[in-house]
Amino acid sequence: MSATTDSGFYSIIDYTVDGPATQQELVDAFAAIQEKWVRFYPGYLSARFHVSTDGTRVYNVVSWASEADYRNFVETSDTDGRMADIVGAVEALGGRAEARMSGVPTYTVVREVGPGPRKEG
Amino acid sequence: MSATTDSGFYSIIDYTVDGPATQQELVDAFAAIQEKWVRFYPGYLSARFHVSTDGTRVYNVVSWASEADYRNFVETSDTDGRMADIVGAVEALGGRAEARMSGVPTYTVVREVGPGPRKEG
Repeated sequence: MSATTDSGFYSIIDYTVDGPATQQELVDAFAAIQEKWVRFYPGYLSARFHVSTDGTRVYNVVSWASEADYRNFVETSDTDGRMADIVGAVEALGGRAEARMSGVPTYTVVREVGPGPRKEG
Repeated sequence: MSATTDSGFYSIIDYTVDGPATQQELVDAFAAIQEKWVRFYPGYLSARFHVSTDGTRVYNVVSWASEADYRNFVETSDTDGRMADIVGAVEALGGRAEARMSGVPTYTVVREVGPGPRKEG
């Protein structure tokens, strides 16, 4: 089992919500934030919105080509404007959403397990 | 902004941990569980282990080709054996890990925002 060679850099935004309608509202709001504040920076690859099948949770996984690209975004973008928009978007939701992030929301992928034969532990 | 055409199905395993050493332990333990219990089922694509840069969190995003493939895995695999191994692996950690999952841990990707020009909100 070898380590992955993934050189990407990720941020993960994670909320619990009170139902499918709020899931959809939150996805729409955060997608608009990506379009207004994030997607035009060098090295931005994607924001992928994962919604739980039970209607209670949303993960947004934002992918960057490298940590340097992410750092450039943080250093040269309007963080105050973006944060104000995020706060306003969450407050404007018809339903309730609660952030589940803890600590610094930046990630690397340290291992990937692909398909293969069964291996006894 | 159009909806994604992603037809995949995902499960997301989410833990807070007490430091980088426990992050690595947890990744190694869950990678072994994928190899022993999961990766040989039809439609299994990958398990990707995301570790936070501050050492406090681990997300494992498991990707399936379709919901039908995931359902087949659940219905035909040894769930009791797998769950016992997961419980044992978490108990055997040298550090502390706390599950952060809420509700049913299965997901679809309902939207993806790719690179593009700035769009005013």
